[in-house]
Amino acid sequence: MSEAFVHRLRVRYAECDAQGVVFNANYLAYIDHTINELCRAAFGSYQTMLDRGVDIVVGEVRMRFLGAARFEEEIVIEATITKMGTTSLTSAHRFGRADGELLLDAEIRHVFVDAASGAKTPIPEWARAGLARWLIETSAATAEGR
Amino acid sequence: MSEAFVHRLRVRYAECDAQGVVFNANYLAYIDHTINELCRAAFGSYQTMLDRGVDIVVGEVRMRFLGAARFEEEIVIEATITKMGTTSLTSAHRFGRADGELLLDAEIRHVFVDAASGAKTPIPEWARAGLARWLIETSAATAEGR
Amino acid sequence: MSEAFVHRLRVRYAECDAQGVVFNANYLAYIDHTINELCRAAFGSYQTMLDRGVDIVVGEVRMRFLGAARFEEEIVIEATITKMGTTSLTSAHRFGRADGELLLDAEIRHVFVDAASGAKTPIPEWARAGLARWLIETSAATAEGR
Amino acid sequence: MSEAFVHRLRVRYAECDAQGVVFNANYLAYIDHTINELCRAAFGSYQTMLDRGVDIVVGEVRMRFLGAARFEEEIVIEATITKMGTTSLTSAHRFGRADGELLLDAEIRHVFVDAASGAKTPIPEWARAGLARWLIETSAATAEGR
Repeated sequence: MSEAFVHRLRVRYAECDAQGVVFNANYLAYIDHTINELCRAAFGSYQTMLDRGVDIVVGEVRMRFLGAARFEEEIVIEATITKMGTTSLTSAHRFGRADGELLLDAEIRHVFVDAASGAKTPIPEWARAGLARWLIETSAATAEGR
Repeated sequence: MSEAFVHRLRVRYAECDAQGVVFNANYLAYIDHTINELCRAAFGSYQTMLDRGVDIVVGEVRMRFLGAARFEEEIVIEATITKMGTTSLTSAHRFGRADGELLLDAEIRHVFVDAASGAKTPIPEWARAGLARWLIETSAATAEGR
Repeated sequence: MSEAFVHRLRVRYAECDAQGVVFNANYLAYIDHTINELCRAAFGSYQTMLDRGVDIVVGEVRMRFLGAARFEEEIVIEATITKMGTTSLTSAHRFGRADGELLLDAEIRHVFVDAASGAKTPIPEWARAGLARWLIETSAATAEGR
Repeated sequence: MSEAFVHRLRVRYAECDAQGVVFNANYLAYIDHTINELCRAAFGSYQTMLDRGVDIVVGEVRMRFLGAARFEEEIVIEATITKMGTTSLTSAHRFGRADGELLLDAEIRHVFVDAASGAKTPIPEWARAGLARWLIETSAATAEGR
């Protein structure tokens, strides 16, 4: 059983809204940021990917909001890869407080594309190999069948 | 059959990323903005709601990315309400270019809460009445059953 | 005497912070946005400029905060050009409420650069001609001498 | 001679614009963030201040842009306090690359206010004491005389 990739960040003031908590769209920016940190851990950096002529774009995302992170709170993001298809990568993200309370549960599907043309392209072997350590094949992900 | 609520906006430079198109998280901010415009059309403004002791929070969102809006492009957002439950409101959002090409398809569920306590509260009658004109009960929404 | 270029915008929820007013950095984003609207009015669009091989970058900015714009408030931005040098353009921006109360007073200097190399380049004649109608040569701007 | 307060951060993708570098307004967000980190180091946190009935608002800012930080680049922010007046605090911020190249030079003035009324209030002794270690009285700051 694989371990999740863990990324921690502290909520910045600019990320909070008039309700005094993280603005909803910023959780998606956090997920994007976590994916970039995952790429760094997997094969150097997002830039490495671009330098090799490959880019990723978001295909689909689903987010469930369960709690609200406050300014200066440290949040823990646990990411796992739930499916690596031919050209698409699905990852799951759980956001929690330091005490373990779950704040957000999300799943996002990225598509690998040729950086120049934007056309879909198979996940390169070096990316597949680098990302494999966080892959958790689940029946749910399989059922999703993308 | 109800008409969709239509909101148009022009993409700002600050909303684009290094790929030269709208950054993914900003579409969620656009949806949030559209919901506020919908509230304005339905019953005055989001602030009206707060003044009456009610607030809304996001419960869940699903977004499918089909195309990428560019800087200065005018995009058209068509919003409909697909379900009005006891305490929750589900709306669908279709983002298109001026020529009709679909860019994004999303569904978001908001929950009405007491502005002071944060506890779930039934959708007030004045909100229900104001929002009803954009309600399109679909079998899909019913099946979702939230 | 030239008239100011006037741009109006309504404050979005995403632009407010936990103090319930526009987050300070977003005023700079508003200024950037106003410059783009000014370019649109002057010579088509910011993209027109890029297509002609020219870009602009910020050299310096000074902002004085006098009041705080609230969510959904309509603000009026009056922009004038206070100096057109060989390669740099200085513009002044006054942000006010609908009732005329001044919220922010700013001055920003942009530098024209070659879009490919990033090297400073003289303001092209078509840009100079298009922008001239909002030029207000002031003794203060002259004294600033940039 | 005091040492500067040093804060490091890595540029996130969401902070970059279509030019592939940090969007200009985000440097002001970085300065805001640095001030909050400075408050944390000085007396616990920004929240501590709010809990004691005091808040800070931006009065004025001046920024000079000298270079452009790229995605994933680590930047080093050195902050010093250049003036502590009765109710206002002026700080200087130098942004550099890891190799020392200067990217941005800024000065920002904050005003202490009563958190409830918003009225100017003297800098509390505990804040003054906590911040003093980064205070560098310069003749320039004195000449500015605010």
